[in-house]
Amino acid sequence: MIRVGIIGASGYTGAELARLLVNHPGVELTLATSRQYAGKPLARVFPHLAGRTELVCEDPAGLAVAGRADFYFTAVPHQTAMAVVPGLLATGAKVVDLSADFRLHDRQVYEQWYQAHSAPELLAEAVYGLPEIHRAAIAGARLVANPGCYPTSVLLALAPLLKAGCIDPASLIIDAKSGTSGAGRTAQTGTLYCEVTEGFRAYKVGAHRHTPEIEQELSELYGQPLKVTFTPHLVPMSRGMLSTIYADLRGEPDQAELERVVREFYRDEPFVRVLDAGQLPATQHVRGSNFCDLALRVDQRNRRVIVLAAIDNLVKGAAGQAVQNMNLLCGLPEEQGLGQLVPLFP
Amino acid sequence: MIRVGIIGASGYTGAELARLLVNHPGVELTLATSRQYAGKPLARVFPHLAGRTELVCEDPAGLAVAGRADFYFTAVPHQTAMAVVPGLLATGAKVVDLSADFRLHDRQVYEQWYQAHSAPELLAEAVYGLPEIHRAAIAGARLVANPGCYPTSVLLALAPLLKAGCIDPASLIIDAKSGTSGAGRTAQTGTLYCEVTEGFRAYKVGAHRHTPEIEQELSELYGQPLKVTFTPHLVPMSRGMLSTIYADLRGEPDQAELERVVREFYRDEPFVRVLDAGQLPATQHVRGSNFCDLALRVDQRNRRVIVLAAIDNLVKGAAGQAVQNMNLLCGLPEEQGLGQLVPLFP
Amino acid sequence: MIRVGIIGASGYTGAELARLLVNHPGVELTLATSRQYAGKPLARVFPHLAGRTELVCEDPAGLAVAGRADFYFTAVPHQTAMAVVPGLLATGAKVVDLSADFRLHDRQVYEQWYQAHSAPELLAEAVYGLPEIHRAAIAGARLVANPGCYPTSVLLALAPLLKAGCIDPASLIIDAKSGTSGAGRTAQTGTLYCEVTEGFRAYKVGAHRHTPEIEQELSELYGQPLKVTFTPHLVPMSRGMLSTIYADLRGEPDQAELERVVREFYRDEPFVRVLDAGQLPATQHVRGSNFCDLALRVDQRNRRVIVLAAIDNLVKGAAGQAVQNMNLLCGLPEEQGLGQLVPLFP
Amino acid sequence: MIRVGIIGASGYTGAELARLLVNHPGVELTLATSRQYAGKPLARVFPHLAGRTELVCEDPAGLAVAGRADFYFTAVPHQTAMAVVPGLLATGAKVVDLSADFRLHDRQVYEQWYQAHSAPELLAEAVYGLPEIHRAAIAGARLVANPGCYPTSVLLALAPLLKAGCIDPASLIIDAKSGTSGAGRTAQTGTLYCEVTEGFRAYKVGAHRHTPEIEQELSELYGQPLKVTFTPHLVPMSRGMLSTIYADLRGEPDQAELERVVREFYRDEPFVRVLDAGQLPATQHVRGSNFCDLALRVDQRNRRVIVLAAIDNLVKGAAGQAVQNMNLLCGLPEEQGLGQLVPLFP
Repeated sequence: MIRVGIIGASGYTGAELARLLVNHPGVELTLATSRQYAGKPLARVFPHLAGRTELVCEDPAGLAVAGRADFYFTAVPHQTAMAVVPGLLATGAKVVDLSADFRLHDRQVYEQWYQAHSAPELLAEAVYGLPEIHRAAIAGARLVANPGCYPTSVLLALAPLLKAGCIDPASLIIDAKSGTSGAGRTAQTGTLYCEVTEGFRAYKVGAHRHTPEIEQELSELYGQPLKVTFTPHLVPMSRGMLSTIYADLRGEPDQAELERVVREFYRDEPFVRVLDAGQLPATQHVRGSNFCDLALRVDQRNRRVIVLAAIDNLVKGAAGQAVQNMNLLCGLPEEQGLGQLVPLFP
Repeated sequence: MIRVGIIGASGYTGAELARLLVNHPGVELTLATSRQYAGKPLARVFPHLAGRTELVCEDPAGLAVAGRADFYFTAVPHQTAMAVVPGLLATGAKVVDLSADFRLHDRQVYEQWYQAHSAPELLAEAVYGLPEIHRAAIAGARLVANPGCYPTSVLLALAPLLKAGCIDPASLIIDAKSGTSGAGRTAQTGTLYCEVTEGFRAYKVGAHRHTPEIEQELSELYGQPLKVTFTPHLVPMSRGMLSTIYADLRGEPDQAELERVVREFYRDEPFVRVLDAGQLPATQHVRGSNFCDLALRVDQRNRRVIVLAAIDNLVKGAAGQAVQNMNLLCGLPEEQGLGQLVPLFP
Repeated sequence: MIRVGIIGASGYTGAELARLLVNHPGVELTLATSRQYAGKPLARVFPHLAGRTELVCEDPAGLAVAGRADFYFTAVPHQTAMAVVPGLLATGAKVVDLSADFRLHDRQVYEQWYQAHSAPELLAEAVYGLPEIHRAAIAGARLVANPGCYPTSVLLALAPLLKAGCIDPASLIIDAKSGTSGAGRTAQTGTLYCEVTEGFRAYKVGAHRHTPEIEQELSELYGQPLKVTFTPHLVPMSRGMLSTIYADLRGEPDQAELERVVREFYRDEPFVRVLDAGQLPATQHVRGSNFCDLALRVDQRNRRVIVLAAIDNLVKGAAGQAVQNMNLLCGLPEEQGLGQLVPLFP
Repeated sequence: MIRVGIIGASGYTGAELARLLVNHPGVELTLATSRQYAGKPLARVFPHLAGRTELVCEDPAGLAVAGRADFYFTAVPHQTAMAVVPGLLATGAKVVDLSADFRLHDRQVYEQWYQAHSAPELLAEAVYGLPEIHRAAIAGARLVANPGCYPTSVLLALAPLLKAGCIDPASLIIDAKSGTSGAGRTAQTGTLYCEVTEGFRAYKVGAHRHTPEIEQELSELYGQPLKVTFTPHLVPMSRGMLSTIYADLRGEPDQAELERVVREFYRDEPFVRVLDAGQLPATQHVRGSNFCDLALRVDQRNRRVIVLAAIDNLVKGAAGQAVQNMNLLCGLPEEQGLGQLVPLFP
């Protein structure tokens, strides 16, 4: 039984980790920290967890973590994560960090999009935790940087076609849409119910911090540096993410050929569902699960391909993928604690 | 391994049964019928189930059910159920019927609120499937009538206080609110997204068919006939049900005393969560789970009590309770396939 | 042209006042204050107002209001209102206050439910601004206390039957449901999109501050003190309010008779729509308008009546009613600026 | 007073026309037809209209339209429109048709994307009713083809930049998102509340019938044939449409320069709001109004521009634009009946 701690348990990602871990047969949840709710049972912070966990939130300030857990999830904001992770590693524990702090290999790129980095020595060591691409490296790592939600959907959508050379890397346009839980649980006017419901908008157009992360991984997959245009949008829903990606075709591939490439790439993947011809992904069909649903359409009139990927941003886009990474890091079966998740519809 | 069939798999209740059963360690799903989708994989009708079941819908017309399953859920409309259930029982199988056809013991009452009954001989045999009240009888039954969603929430809310004699049975007023999935998956103008979103309304005020069902069970609990005023409402959400129930107090009980009565009544129940003082139920905290969350408030100014109950109408209000009943009928652990359901929030 | 100022323009009620006033032919909007957004155009705070107003928010602190407007709406929190209103009246202007500060005639009752009152001398003068009940008094007033949203719906629903003696005043139970805009625009975790969507809950059961306001007005209508049980609920929608009210019948009135009483009571009212037999109110049918839709159902089995009232909480429940009061106070046609509002559906 | 008829009043577009026309000072609504609701008051079909219109729906079959109105809106499905419009024109009336039947000038293109055309002789006469582009032609027309909702948002977004030669016409990618009211009021499983809420999906990827309409108009604006990639999506909201459009830049224009081009193009347009720097359109800020909100962002890293346009699909995308066209056709002030529409937020 692996003893697991959640550092930062009072956000939506922390709560989702707890939801998954209380049912995970290979682990025991031994620690949950929250500055705001220190001393309060986690099931009072999140009443849906009542009857499923007795854990009480602890104050991270001055907490002696040594020996409290064998494994940690850090679900704190970027910049906080880089302050916390080295100490956790020092206890001999392994860590999956859900922030952006260890995702970018290049310190300069990180500091250009975020702020100064206080633990740059870990950047080279941290493994980018997208199992479908970096499975082997993850299995041997001590620190895994859990991918952002947008990058997860984009990378899973593009990896097969980009590696197979079917698309022009200079033509990538990503139009992505996210549910509101991606904005977190901090009280802000912009994410109040009344501001979000029955409305749709773009935000941070061409300036979202997931851009360099997407570019780093796509460049590595392609073998040469490439850039993307990336536009995120806010959807009036709590969970779910759909990325619609446009690329110019190389050569004359048709619909069937490209589908074959994608299907072959993911043939053994437990969490990627390549949809049948005629079907398109919908976020409501992956809700609550670790699935990524994929489809593509060739636009022959314009010799482009449109690739669509749907995930639950809190599961495959955050907590579920983090558990998948933990399983790999700890030598547990990759699907453990995740394989029984059937999407909740309606 | 118990072989289980779902008769009527293309509605929301049928889909929810499938969601629960594919993860149930004691059963194998061997049959799913649907007139409309005969020949189509269930996972094409409900894409969220892709990767979790290979079952293909079969046409119920002329189907030889004998030997296809040891146990059946009938998730068809009332009037259809009474035509189907006798044949299923005749194969030697046990049945949990999710329609209203076998819930009322009194044929006359049934025919007054619904229409003529074609299998009245089964009315005496059928057991009303609310495990928290009728556990023993369910365990020995061949046919269980799964309670309606509204009655489930109301009966769980009122049973302790009514049995303990704390409330005046002539004063019961039930103001209940349901998500839209309760209206089913049949295409109707009234349940289109645009008609429901950002709106709230009552319907069938004082005339809903769950009224006699509530009255039958409450009368049995109380030991004398009683009547209730029942008003259902439609909430702009897919899942969830909250019943707010008003009763005049008998004697001078205070908040703590009534809470004690309820807590004691449900002390060993795995699926009823009596909330801590200061908390109130919310449907989002039971979503996707088999929990019923309960709280009460004494209104000392008016010497009334307000009891609140929240369930997921598709789980504890339908498919989850049906699985709970199946477990009892088949001698499986009551929580099997349900105990790992953690509510999905947000 | 009456010059009008909005004190507290950055909440939902303030914005709604602006929406109504920019189209009002008898007034000119000359002042909008906001501590938080001082110096910012109102149409930057609320981009939907772009192109409809050029007003810039002014800091209320130290503002010389004298001469800036002939009429003020105060849309600030209770306790702030009582500090501001006397100064506005002192400039010779008339005021409609949308807070709770001047609704209760009895200072003790106010201080029991809220906190100490710093302008008690105005309590006797302030007129409760429900035009359908107090039209004449409003027309002659200097200060009108605009009713709360819940009381508006409840009082319009009950006034005819209570005055006509058809119902037992000791039996009143009010189960009310409100959209989330009623909770205001202040950033709070509890009203974040993810906390509210697809969920339903009660709050402040038996303890909401609108209770004494409802009781004051109903008691006055009835001629004797009475008390009510009042339970508010939060609906996953931005606008809209439905109150479902239960009362025991006096005598043997039937459905038609009670409908006649209500219809007669409101025969000349421009903003009350008594629905035809067979129809029930729905909040989506009054959205954005100043209408209150009413219906009732006699429950003959229990000799009770259920009265249902739907309003838009921001219009008839706040800003619209405030404009209606302004029209009365200023001698303008009562429907001016409101009569052209057609509900927005879907 | 122009007498106006609505042919096909029982859909969302018909209802929205009624909402706008009952407040239009220059017209009188004299006829509303509906096959399904013949004989029923329009305000019973759409209860939100109660108190605002007394019109009773008439059966269009065998209806003698001659003399019933001076002007008609046809809000019927394509293929029905082409059967109805010639008869209406024959009465001497003018017509704005809201279907697709008269939008494409080229019969072959129409028949390739839709079906055979039964009134091709009108294709040359019909004017494409986008006032910001074709104002003069509309004013002199007898038959106006009201643009589709998607094309309206796309054309308003691209017209200035395309005419000014700032963008590469071979690079246009349109990622558009629509509320569910665009799918109409016909009962269908796919637009039930439970299927749409809390979900997001693309549909008809690369195959939507608005594609040729967009291409026809853009080609005309540009002066040469061009093609676009167009992907529509369904948003869990009733009203609203946002189009996010990607184009490669020509030359080296910067953000300010392109903004200037757009602002100049629309400087006198009453219904196009070019947002200030730093603002982005959101559908909730145009809800219920005839506004189109525009913004753009230059992506210098990739030398692309992203143009964003938000409209209410039922107003500027349908009924509002139709009224704007009627005003032009009938010599009324273009803003009449529309200028007072302030978006409804929240």
